[in-house]
Amino acid sequence: MTLLQQAEKAKASSYKMLNVSLPVRNGALLAMSDALLMYADYILEQNEADMHAAKVDGKTDAMLDRLLLTKSRIEGMATGIKKVIALPDPIGSEDWVEKMPNGLAIGKRRVPLGVIGIIYEARPNVTSDAISLCVKAGNAVLLRGGSDAIRSNTAIAEVLARAGYKTGLPEGCIQFIQDTSRESAAQLMKLSGLVDVLIPRGGEQLIRSVVQNATVPVIETGLGNCHVFIENSAEVNMARDIVFNAKVSRPAICNAAETLLIEEGFAKAHIASILDPLAQAGVELRGCEKSRRLYHGMKPAQEQDWLTEYHELILAVRVVSDIEEAITHINRCGTHHSESIVTSSYAAAEQFLNAVDAAAVYVNASTRFTDGEEFGFGAEIGISTQKLHARGPMGLHELTTVKYVVRGNGQIR
Amino acid sequence: MTLLQQAEKAKASSYKMLNVSLPVRNGALLAMSDALLMYADYILEQNEADMHAAKVDGKTDAMLDRLLLTKSRIEGMATGIKKVIALPDPIGSEDWVEKMPNGLAIGKRRVPLGVIGIIYEARPNVTSDAISLCVKAGNAVLLRGGSDAIRSNTAIAEVLARAGYKTGLPEGCIQFIQDTSRESAAQLMKLSGLVDVLIPRGGEQLIRSVVQNATVPVIETGLGNCHVFIENSAEVNMARDIVFNAKVSRPAICNAAETLLIEEGFAKAHIASILDPLAQAGVELRGCEKSRRLYHGMKPAQEQDWLTEYHELILAVRVVSDIEEAITHINRCGTHHSESIVTSSYAAAEQFLNAVDAAAVYVNASTRFTDGEEFGFGAEIGISTQKLHARGPMGLHELTTVKYVVRGNGQIR
Repeated sequence: MTLLQQAEKAKASSYKMLNVSLPVRNGALLAMSDALLMYADYILEQNEADMHAAKVDGKTDAMLDRLLLTKSRIEGMATGIKKVIALPDPIGSEDWVEKMPNGLAIGKRRVPLGVIGIIYEARPNVTSDAISLCVKAGNAVLLRGGSDAIRSNTAIAEVLARAGYKTGLPEGCIQFIQDTSRESAAQLMKLSGLVDVLIPRGGEQLIRSVVQNATVPVIETGLGNCHVFIENSAEVNMARDIVFNAKVSRPAICNAAETLLIEEGFAKAHIASILDPLAQAGVELRGCEKSRRLYHGMKPAQEQDWLTEYHELILAVRVVSDIEEAITHINRCGTHHSESIVTSSYAAAEQFLNAVDAAAVYVNASTRFTDGEEFGFGAEIGISTQKLHARGPMGLHELTTVKYVVRGNGQIR
Repeated sequence: MTLLQQAEKAKASSYKMLNVSLPVRNGALLAMSDALLMYADYILEQNEADMHAAKVDGKTDAMLDRLLLTKSRIEGMATGIKKVIALPDPIGSEDWVEKMPNGLAIGKRRVPLGVIGIIYEARPNVTSDAISLCVKAGNAVLLRGGSDAIRSNTAIAEVLARAGYKTGLPEGCIQFIQDTSRESAAQLMKLSGLVDVLIPRGGEQLIRSVVQNATVPVIETGLGNCHVFIENSAEVNMARDIVFNAKVSRPAICNAAETLLIEEGFAKAHIASILDPLAQAGVELRGCEKSRRLYHGMKPAQEQDWLTEYHELILAVRVVSDIEEAITHINRCGTHHSESIVTSSYAAAEQFLNAVDAAAVYVNASTRFTDGEEFGFGAEIGISTQKLHARGPMGLHELTTVKYVVRGNGQIR
């Protein structure tokens, strides 16, 4: 099948999905979860072939780790599907129903988006996560993974689709694109009328390419140049713990902090209390001029540092003269993902919450909490850093749209 | 100022808009409404120059009518702004606040989108409508109108901006782009990071061009290839009135019907009752083969007719063998705007509401009701035919986004 044919099949089956009840969707998800375990050996075999090819290609250890599947990782995928089963039905309810003076009853009904396209990179568990969330929300899904994981992804998609079709999902609602060429990605981005939304999951280059080239609606995800700002009135221990957690706990994740901003008064008194533990943990510190006068041994930060999501144990440090300077820096340099202030001042907290332009703005907490599970959504398909449709962690709700349903008895205008 | 400088100014002032209270926004809107009346002569003078140039250019009467301003049309714009003042504040509330087990309080706060770009064509009242709605929702606005109305639009934007800045809006939040070249439109479509959403208002060509070329998020609006489907059990008089209203009352508007689908049993018994009044009203009928056998004198419809939004007194007519065929036709040929079924059958009504993929789906009512005022939103900035962010008539709520506001006391992960 060509990509176009696959998309047409997904579209046709998305209309059939509208008639698939919650018990059938949940039953299919349960069968999928079981099938992952039943066919774990087959999936692992295919993953081994991917791993072999990646090693021959000389991929880095970090890349190999992202690609690797183990029995326990497959069990994790199966458990993830069960969690999705437990979530309430995101579709069918009417959020708002109004009776108009002319007698028309207008309801705003939650409905599936239709066909969701996902372009992603190495990690094969995305295949399973994305399929389960899209199906639960009543959508058809068109997946295009990276070439490194092609055998693993194909196997997972095949196992899940077969289990789903056997238990009542309409044939064709799960489409995995075999072709991992640039051309297939480019074509997917332009399937207006067939793909209702395209969600890229991966690195900066992939996301930029989708935003630049797509003609179908896109939800931009995951770029996280996040900041922690320590205001003068912050408690020293709290500030130290939050900065350390935001930078060190999982530096490769998008909600990790990349730049630390410190208000001048606090920096003069306490900069060492904040930076010493980071330096001891092996974090490379790159400071502005002012901060380097207060704390020795940092490399100088360049303009580029303020704009970089390191994904590594590197932290840019800047001393600012007041909260306005911190807010301006964040709004100018950030990616509008997750931003945190540490403060004891009510006024500073409220000002920061109001003025910082980001999906999630924190007072006295680590930026690392921006995550669907942590927000109580049960699962997430990504973290939106745009303002349209979805912002922050996207759960099942964000995989739906609305339709106005209008009941009359002969009204004309 | 270059377009880029204008966009940067809009962005900077959008951050200042976050601190502008509702009383100040409403006060500014009142001053704007007054200013339109106070400077009506100046605006009319500029409009006269546009009208003169358009006549010299040989524009059609319909185009001239769209361009024309009169004292009473300016009064209508001023009244429109007063209606916006009366609407509740769309920003600041938190739709959802949850206390997590770890003590974090997560709130989902309604906030302005930031900078809204609007590309539009002839009608100068869009300038006033768009500015008032965007300002009410706390946004900065970057407007690019068509060249025909350049003098009228410039005058309106100037009068409104001056009145707004005098009464507390941050300087720069209303930007009108003087350059009406293709290049300026192309540049506006690519201002990623400066324009948070771009809304095209105009004809098919404009909208397609924006969808094809924009890298900033777009809300597709206004294309309306709408259908009325008469099911076998429909009441004849109701069906006749609804079809007549949907086609004839305002054929140039996007919610007018373009194709009539009739179930075969009904067509055999009643097609003349439905089509005679249309023919008498001067509607050109283009029928499928089956319908032409049942009702003589129609031109044959071509495949292209099913896909065309005529914007005129032309109606395509097709006889279908059952409701499934009607639904399939609508989902294939429609623009997902407004679709109506006329029926006495509960099952048929529910099936149509469920299976038709459109912003607004009607039972026993004219498609003409898809409109912000009719839906009780008080005003609208356009009608979205996409599924992301907004669907159907877009009011103030659709000019906002959310931000997660997270309050902690030292939480780390």
